[in-house]
Amino acid sequence: MAYNLLKGKKGIIFGALNNMSIAWKVAERAHEEGAEFVLTNTPVSLRFGELNELAEKTGSIIVPADATSVPDLENLVKTAMEKFGGKIDFILHSVAMSLNVRKGKLYDDLNYDYLKKTLDISAISFHKVLQVSRKLDAIKDWGSVVALSYVAAQRSLYGYNDMADAKAMLESIARSFGYIYGRDKKIRVNTISQSPTLTTAGSGVKGIDGLLDFTNRMSPLGNATADECADYCVTLFSDLTRKVTMQNLYHDGGFSKMGMSFRAMNMYNQGLEQGKHMKDDE
Amino acid sequence: MAYNLLKGKKGIIFGALNNMSIAWKVAERAHEEGAEFVLTNTPVSLRFGELNELAEKTGSIIVPADATSVPDLENLVKTAMEKFGGKIDFILHSVAMSLNVRKGKLYDDLNYDYLKKTLDISAISFHKVLQVSRKLDAIKDWGSVVALSYVAAQRSLYGYNDMADAKAMLESIARSFGYIYGRDKKIRVNTISQSPTLTTAGSGVKGIDGLLDFTNRMSPLGNATADECADYCVTLFSDLTRKVTMQNLYHDGGFSKMGMSFRAMNMYNQGLEQGKHMKDDE
Amino acid sequence: MAYNLLKGKKGIIFGALNNMSIAWKVAERAHEEGAEFVLTNTPVSLRFGELNELAEKTGSIIVPADATSVPDLENLVKTAMEKFGGKIDFILHSVAMSLNVRKGKLYDDLNYDYLKKTLDISAISFHKVLQVSRKLDAIKDWGSVVALSYVAAQRSLYGYNDMADAKAMLESIARSFGYIYGRDKKIRVNTISQSPTLTTAGSGVKGIDGLLDFTNRMSPLGNATADECADYCVTLFSDLTRKVTMQNLYHDGGFSKMGMSFRAMNMYNQGLEQGKHMKDDE
Amino acid sequence: MAYNLLKGKKGIIFGALNNMSIAWKVAERAHEEGAEFVLTNTPVSLRFGELNELAEKTGSIIVPADATSVPDLENLVKTAMEKFGGKIDFILHSVAMSLNVRKGKLYDDLNYDYLKKTLDISAISFHKVLQVSRKLDAIKDWGSVVALSYVAAQRSLYGYNDMADAKAMLESIARSFGYIYGRDKKIRVNTISQSPTLTTAGSGVKGIDGLLDFTNRMSPLGNATADECADYCVTLFSDLTRKVTMQNLYHDGGFSKMGMSFRAMNMYNQGLEQGKHMKDDE
Repeated sequence: MAYNLLKGKKGIIFGALNNMSIAWKVAERAHEEGAEFVLTNTPVSLRFGELNELAEKTGSIIVPADATSVPDLENLVKTAMEKFGGKIDFILHSVAMSLNVRKGKLYDDLNYDYLKKTLDISAISFHKVLQVSRKLDAIKDWGSVVALSYVAAQRSLYGYNDMADAKAMLESIARSFGYIYGRDKKIRVNTISQSPTLTTAGSGVKGIDGLLDFTNRMSPLGNATADECADYCVTLFSDLTRKVTMQNLYHDGGFSKMGMSFRAMNMYNQGLEQGKHMKDDE
Repeated sequence: MAYNLLKGKKGIIFGALNNMSIAWKVAERAHEEGAEFVLTNTPVSLRFGELNELAEKTGSIIVPADATSVPDLENLVKTAMEKFGGKIDFILHSVAMSLNVRKGKLYDDLNYDYLKKTLDISAISFHKVLQVSRKLDAIKDWGSVVALSYVAAQRSLYGYNDMADAKAMLESIARSFGYIYGRDKKIRVNTISQSPTLTTAGSGVKGIDGLLDFTNRMSPLGNATADECADYCVTLFSDLTRKVTMQNLYHDGGFSKMGMSFRAMNMYNQGLEQGKHMKDDE
Repeated sequence: MAYNLLKGKKGIIFGALNNMSIAWKVAERAHEEGAEFVLTNTPVSLRFGELNELAEKTGSIIVPADATSVPDLENLVKTAMEKFGGKIDFILHSVAMSLNVRKGKLYDDLNYDYLKKTLDISAISFHKVLQVSRKLDAIKDWGSVVALSYVAAQRSLYGYNDMADAKAMLESIARSFGYIYGRDKKIRVNTISQSPTLTTAGSGVKGIDGLLDFTNRMSPLGNATADECADYCVTLFSDLTRKVTMQNLYHDGGFSKMGMSFRAMNMYNQGLEQGKHMKDDE
Repeated sequence: MAYNLLKGKKGIIFGALNNMSIAWKVAERAHEEGAEFVLTNTPVSLRFGELNELAEKTGSIIVPADATSVPDLENLVKTAMEKFGGKIDFILHSVAMSLNVRKGKLYDDLNYDYLKKTLDISAISFHKVLQVSRKLDAIKDWGSVVALSYVAAQRSLYGYNDMADAKAMLESIARSFGYIYGRDKKIRVNTISQSPTLTTAGSGVKGIDGLLDFTNRMSPLGNATADECADYCVTLFSDLTRKVTMQNLYHDGGFSKMGMSFRAMNMYNQGLEQGKHMKDDE
């Protein structure tokens, strides 16, 4: 169902790769709600992904950009402003990557060059997007900027590695820039802390299947899907959430506020029961 | 502008008194968005308020109910279900009162009978609304329940008194019942932590004017108004936020994430400058 | 090992029942560190517990008091001041009880009279202790008051029931009164959020064994014991933590900051593996 | 007063510059409590500071190290282990610097090379200290690592700039590494969120005087001093806090839990009163 919530709104969407991507779903839903937008991803991702399909479907153009490159971002924002004949209304930042995760470097054996890349891609890129937009005065008053985050920014999860620190920094950037952009231009900046989601990026995280089962049973409403996340993004880009800013908003079926659920405890207890006949797992 | 976000949805709205009430604004906006609802308040409030006007405007019926009375709530919920020929979709709880505040009892000189009333009216009533709804199976799957809260639940504000403790408990009830209602019926329960708002209720809080100026200058987007809160409620009652539950959602122009703003610091510094010529204020 | 950290300090310790009680351990450690104190519990608990043994061991007197009774608390505080010839330095509040838990009433079927008792005993009693102490000017400047809490105040745990709401209110009282008592008398008020602990009180909580195993495997340092909690209390009563106030301090081996540990995930995965051969547990 | 809380304990203290430094005070107090330690700072700081005086006073050696250099840290840790004939017990990390702050680059005009330096010095250095210690197996079981942080990690403060993001990352590193180090070696890792403190480093922050007055009037116990922070560190290095880990511990006189105090409101209202005769400050 569509409501015209974003009718006439223009935006930029980072990070769609294929139809498992949250950003892909956001683009589809934003299109249904009446928005126009520019799609962007790195040149490499554009080669491997299927972004042309999404661009056609939503009547969008694609502008390649490395989100860690200020000149690329300047070109992207300027191109968007030219296309739309003026300022834009919203930005989605869905960009994250850790070479330490990919290369199997554990958190107590980090490669520091990889860590810098993790931060550059997954956190500092968000500051660059905001700073470039601010300098080009690219976003309308009362515009909305959203980045995707994860509860690992608050609580440690086995295997999430240096991405936890990057997400903590990402959320801090939302607050820090949210203050300035709000004060000066009434623009709001928030992060959504989404359930673990089986995207191409997410599937690289170790032990993701067991974790997804756990978070699903812990969350009273179950894990939030990419489609549901897209719905939520639409509300944050709409005019109905104008005074929500600097927040990290959990979209996770309730997981973040759970200590232990009946369902997860049952499953855990089955493991315990089983474990009695086994050597300790430690 | 209306989007039909609540088309076909039925609800119950607690706490509208006059057109300064947040609940009043929520009723107006919910009506614009296509919802039908029952309005309720205490018999006393109904005498002093202007709820008939709102009922006419929105085509609603009024069912008097003391939110601390289980029988009253049962009657209310049953009446709503009869009127709508079935289950409802949403509930707004905007109910709070402290006799300690009203009677000028300070927090280190509380009257404990008043404190019990504060808790009964401002927090336990929310549990009763939920428990009665649950027992009568009154809310549709994926329905949405929202209560209004305030940042005093997390941070101490001079003069907010025992209402701070009631709000902390209110937010806990949202989590506790949100887990059960979500697990069993996919119903979400959240609180909105709203900027201080000059309602008839809010105006009783001591030193509210200076505080409103402070929070306004601290918040990059300024204080959130009752109208804006109504917009936000609409998104939480809509189908676009189905996986948001057990959360306390700040709708406050960013206040909750501010340590010190340029504008508030400037005003404070003027006080400091002035204060140099005066005796210490303590 | 003892350090004389509390040499010359006087206090009141609520809630010791038997040698499994955290309050019992705190009394033992405070005694070792040079403190003198009055022990108190309800008349009923005094009959069933073994508090005389503790009183003898620590050279303390016992003053019966129902922590929900202001006159009882006044008598207690006055007796303590008489015994010590002046003001005291610290108070431990370790008092909690839920008839809803005891009588097996689930959270969506609460008995509201029981709920009021839960709040009265587990939360409001803390306010009464503080207000009575304040009115009698019973605590020295830079004194320290600690109450015991649990992570259920922030996150929902199956079976913890209305105690979660009571703990949320308890922590709020620590903030609210901590502001006033700090401002006026430099007295600090904090809560310790302790690991689930197998005390006589804790053992009433449903499914406690599985939960203890889970929190133990989730916590990098394992669950905190009552003895360790006593050590921590000593630091908070000492002069070394004078500027820590209004805080909820997690003493839980890291549990509160964990999303998922390797050890807990392994155990859970064993349950999953097992569960594949079974019907869904829901 | 000394308690022998750290008798026999060995450590490494980063970041003492002169007798205004928090790390300097920690060294003095740790020495009084019976600890031995190695002092370290950058070669440049060693030239400008007065660390020799502290080393003499506390019977310590000084090992120059750039905390962003893994080889320097390896040399430091190995030297400490040689000096003490084995593993150490505690580490204090008090290292932070922002060229963006120093050079007057505002947060919406960051120099990204400076930002990388900010992160490298103020956050990643903490990971390097931990990773080097872990690889060299340099810390005894149940050892304690503390880093100094600031509330800007949670709430935006005008002028705190990219240091806010660095502190958010620092606190995340404490959680992430705290999980691993706790699980594997029972070593705890925490951050202290200290009141704004007039150190040589802190004095570079813009508008620090007005801010210090504000936080002092907001905090019921007033701002925490460097001396008081040293006392608190001692408790965290001691054996009495063994199950506290992955926490960010506010040592701030209550500031973090305040929304508005009577005293700060009075001062602000004086500014308001004054401001009525003036043009708006914005």
